[in-house]
Amino acid sequence: MSKVTFQIEGETPVIVGCNPGDNLLDLARRANVAIDAPCSGNGSCGKCRVKLVSGELESLKSRHICEEEYEAGWRLACCSKVLSDCVVFVPDIASAYQSRMKTADLSSPGEIAIFEDCQNHLHQSGIHFVNRFRAVTVSMAEPTLDDTMPDNERLTHALTEALGVERVEIPYCVMAKLAPALREHGFSLCVKGELLGDTFRCMEICAPEDTAIVGCAIDIGTTTVTMVLTDLCSGKLLAKGSSGNGQIRYGADVINRIIEQSRPGGRKKLQDAIIKETLVPVMVQLCRHAGISARSILRLSVGANTTMNHLLVGVDAQSVRMEPYVPSFFHWDGLLAGDLKLPANPLAPVLIAPNIGSYVGGDITAGTLAAGIWDKDEMSLFIDLGTNGELVFGNRDFLMSCACSAGPAFEGGDISCGMRATDGAVEACVIDRETMEPTPEIIGEEGQKPVGICGSGIIDLISELFRCGIINAKGLFVREGRRIRRDEHGMGRYVLAWPEESETGREIALNEVDIDNFIRAKGAIFSAIETLLHAVDMTVDMIDKVYVAGGIGSGINMKNAVNIGMFPDVELSKFHYIGNSSLSGAYAMVVSDEAARKTAEVAANMTYLELSTYPGYMDSFVAACFLPHTDARLFPHSLHE
Amino acid sequence: MSKVTFQIEGETPVIVGCNPGDNLLDLARRANVAIDAPCSGNGSCGKCRVKLVSGELESLKSRHICEEEYEAGWRLACCSKVLSDCVVFVPDIASAYQSRMKTADLSSPGEIAIFEDCQNHLHQSGIHFVNRFRAVTVSMAEPTLDDTMPDNERLTHALTEALGVERVEIPYCVMAKLAPALREHGFSLCVKGELLGDTFRCMEICAPEDTAIVGCAIDIGTTTVTMVLTDLCSGKLLAKGSSGNGQIRYGADVINRIIEQSRPGGRKKLQDAIIKETLVPVMVQLCRHAGISARSILRLSVGANTTMNHLLVGVDAQSVRMEPYVPSFFHWDGLLAGDLKLPANPLAPVLIAPNIGSYVGGDITAGTLAAGIWDKDEMSLFIDLGTNGELVFGNRDFLMSCACSAGPAFEGGDISCGMRATDGAVEACVIDRETMEPTPEIIGEEGQKPVGICGSGIIDLISELFRCGIINAKGLFVREGRRIRRDEHGMGRYVLAWPEESETGREIALNEVDIDNFIRAKGAIFSAIETLLHAVDMTVDMIDKVYVAGGIGSGINMKNAVNIGMFPDVELSKFHYIGNSSLSGAYAMVVSDEAARKTAEVAANMTYLELSTYPGYMDSFVAACFLPHTDARLFPHSLHE
Repeated sequence: MSKVTFQIEGETPVIVGCNPGDNLLDLARRANVAIDAPCSGNGSCGKCRVKLVSGELESLKSRHICEEEYEAGWRLACCSKVLSDCVVFVPDIASAYQSRMKTADLSSPGEIAIFEDCQNHLHQSGIHFVNRFRAVTVSMAEPTLDDTMPDNERLTHALTEALGVERVEIPYCVMAKLAPALREHGFSLCVKGELLGDTFRCMEICAPEDTAIVGCAIDIGTTTVTMVLTDLCSGKLLAKGSSGNGQIRYGADVINRIIEQSRPGGRKKLQDAIIKETLVPVMVQLCRHAGISARSILRLSVGANTTMNHLLVGVDAQSVRMEPYVPSFFHWDGLLAGDLKLPANPLAPVLIAPNIGSYVGGDITAGTLAAGIWDKDEMSLFIDLGTNGELVFGNRDFLMSCACSAGPAFEGGDISCGMRATDGAVEACVIDRETMEPTPEIIGEEGQKPVGICGSGIIDLISELFRCGIINAKGLFVREGRRIRRDEHGMGRYVLAWPEESETGREIALNEVDIDNFIRAKGAIFSAIETLLHAVDMTVDMIDKVYVAGGIGSGINMKNAVNIGMFPDVELSKFHYIGNSSLSGAYAMVVSDEAARKTAEVAANMTYLELSTYPGYMDSFVAACFLPHTDARLFPHSLHE
Repeated sequence: MSKVTFQIEGETPVIVGCNPGDNLLDLARRANVAIDAPCSGNGSCGKCRVKLVSGELESLKSRHICEEEYEAGWRLACCSKVLSDCVVFVPDIASAYQSRMKTADLSSPGEIAIFEDCQNHLHQSGIHFVNRFRAVTVSMAEPTLDDTMPDNERLTHALTEALGVERVEIPYCVMAKLAPALREHGFSLCVKGELLGDTFRCMEICAPEDTAIVGCAIDIGTTTVTMVLTDLCSGKLLAKGSSGNGQIRYGADVINRIIEQSRPGGRKKLQDAIIKETLVPVMVQLCRHAGISARSILRLSVGANTTMNHLLVGVDAQSVRMEPYVPSFFHWDGLLAGDLKLPANPLAPVLIAPNIGSYVGGDITAGTLAAGIWDKDEMSLFIDLGTNGELVFGNRDFLMSCACSAGPAFEGGDISCGMRATDGAVEACVIDRETMEPTPEIIGEEGQKPVGICGSGIIDLISELFRCGIINAKGLFVREGRRIRRDEHGMGRYVLAWPEESETGREIALNEVDIDNFIRAKGAIFSAIETLLHAVDMTVDMIDKVYVAGGIGSGINMKNAVNIGMFPDVELSKFHYIGNSSLSGAYAMVVSDEAARKTAEVAANMTYLELSTYPGYMDSFVAACFLPHTDARLFPHSLHE
């Protein structure tokens, strides 16, 4: 029996017993040490970098660890076997992806505008932002020897009078604290609850001045989780935060996570990773930030893909990827916050935006609601660039959807220096055609050094490299210069930042493998659009509007995206970036009973197109894996040397 | 810092740290070592006997410990201070009351008859034994590539068809295991749940052959807890068991327990004592005995006094005894088994028979339902002899109730050799007038040695002692003989069993203090009857029926009870012993929706008479504290020398 000590940057070390030959990543997982492993440990992504401090590991060499780094002790955890007692350093920023997850408050006027816009245009579609939750302050007479009505009857009488209801339901969690609450607050209380016809169901009792009733809308992406707290009366945003999805150490994509959850105890592990490690800390922080008690959260909503929904609920997701592809649920009412032990009122319903297929989930139905395309005459194309790509096309008469295996490149996955669109991400870039020097834009405060490149930055870089003739239509480097480097195998890369310029002390570059990965991703998107249009017998010029959603970054340059053949070459004015539409849709659902109903209706009426079996899709995909496309006539406005 | 090791007979020792001078009973409570202390530790009951094995205790001498016992190390825990590291033996049968609680299966044809009678006569009153819980086995088509309906929709369709309902609610606990359950059982399942109008609320899914749906009816007495499991379809009894109420170490009566629960952390301690220590073990054992899964228990009902109800729910009971006497609830719907973490379906409703006053609780409303007096023309007197005495008088036109502070003597409390009516209890006795030798009847198998005396045995003993002229009307010994002993203070006692004849090796006797305690108890009952009749302007001869309920024992000799002036001197044929009517009523409520509704109606229509402030009650009580009464004309049939 040996032991491994994980020295986690900024945290208490974790010691775990092991046998010689044990895989280091498996050990870390067993000990609940969070190490990124988007590829689920097959050595391909290079994100699980750790540094050997003492002891002996048997590690495979990897293209992700250069000679100097290997000398310094850097290893990939997934490619390392423990040979003796070891001490291993787990860096806080082991990769641009960040090994460990952070919670951030992202409030900004721009962020709020997206939700206000959503509320405004849904209002125009007849969706009112009202719901059945209430906070009502009641004052009761103090009991005397002549008025000995029990506490619960006293409260019931006060509430029937105040609300005009016939029945009042008092659950255990309220009953258990009613007597002291009444006496502490002089028989004056704020009661929070749900109005159901002629019945008021109490959910919480508070001091008379604590009248906050709060909704929590959550977008659970495969890579990133984002949520808002909102006032259930006004729809006003109270707090917003995000964090990496803690499941990422079980794989970057849904397939790897489904495989992980199928192992013994896997469902519990994956559920814990999303709930205990991800949602709970963010919710707790947002409650603190908004100055509200978690018990005031009376309803939650979730926009998430089918797999994430299954893993959240803890039901077997195996059926999502295995014949006959029968998931446990598409649309399911009946979940309560208490079932998942979320820091909210335990009786709060959790609305899950309905899934419509194995790979078109609630994030898309919620996003479709938010984009408003279900109520328009014009033909709209809705594109959600998450860890995968999903599309919806149609108008008020029909809606057709599909998913394509674009992979996680838009969120920085499968890209050596890729990262999410957070602080330190290069989100835009211009390259000088002559000097080939870059002018990057970095997310964060003045002086923020670059950490990596997010989706919109990669689009800009590839578009600019192509425009400047630095790479050819296949994504291979065809010019030489100071910024163009090649490794021992001759693979070219463009150095965006030298080691001394970056936050991590490592070079930030885009290499030919990265570019190839990204070209496949954009090719998957474009061919999916082509196929979807073909299926409804329409063409690119019939598209009236293109709504682009997802974590790719608000800085996405539509011109560059067309330039590389990712989006169809339509007028730039038709493009609209609508941010995280899954979150906007979840926000609408949590505040508005009508929006929640409408989302279910939209889901029920949406048709699902299975691309993998659609004739011609593979040909279309192969043709799209060039810059901009093998058929350049499709992109008359694409610029290149 | 010293430490005390509790060597608990038949269990693992418990070690607890302490400071010199700490009270031994307090230490035992802190360490969750169950030691009886019906008097809540004031030295009066003598039940908390422990034996010092090593170390030093400073103990007050007590009349409950004789010189030989003291020499042997016996001490009262409540009267002992720890002076050094100690080892203390806690006997399994430290007293006839039994220090520690036991679960027993009490099934017998006689027991079953009581419930069948209850069902039969309620049926005659128009109360049908049907309810809204269902078990339905559905078989579904297995999914194929052409039939990819999600699991929850598949189940919903099958259930709407099978039950003719419009909506099906699937809660988390069912959803979480639906996918594997369907696949394990070949898409054939038994679904258990609740039919609510046009909605079926699923509560549990099982193998198709597991169709048991079970109700659990619980009588929570201050001293004893008794429960039955019953088939919710047929009303058939599946198991019956009982146990001492684990709260007894916090006091024998409700007042001491209310005081204990008012201390910091007290509510939780008292709630744990009834739920974790008492109800859970009995329920688990009964489920095992009945061969059912706890999840099949779909409804529970509780018959308990107002204080027990408050302590069960964990709400402050202080108001039960303090002005203005406003309890948290009389009638409350809304409790679920999951709220209390009972071993049952977490969604199972827990019906609490409504209380009608601080000292007339749900045990009495449930008992009144079971006695059937609410539907009769004839005038009935219902007497429940629990740890206190409660009475109801009336017929279909009116019902009047009251409670009297009879104390726990009927269940063996406040009696030196008293015990509950379980194995080893002397439940009946005849005394030979000449020889003064007793012929006791002992509960248990052939050859069972006596452990103590239960309520019915005490009635017989006192009646026989009085009839034989051994004691006088004041309960003092006036004859001498082999069986009559006196202590150093001259206090007389009648020795029922010599030390070598008893199970415990201790003498079993009834002394003058015991007799005095019992006379006060029976006096309280009789004067309460007198006062209740007076309040409705009626007399003893207008009583058509007397229903006697409670844990006093089915062997109660009504003639002897009249003989000592406990019950009014009416024709013996008018008396009926109906056993544990709180349990029978709870049984009716759990099986029958109509019975549950009717109990609430009976409670709402019952009038409560407060005896303590009723003019003349105290005089009546004082007059009744003789054998049979100061006014012997009230008891023309009483026999005595």
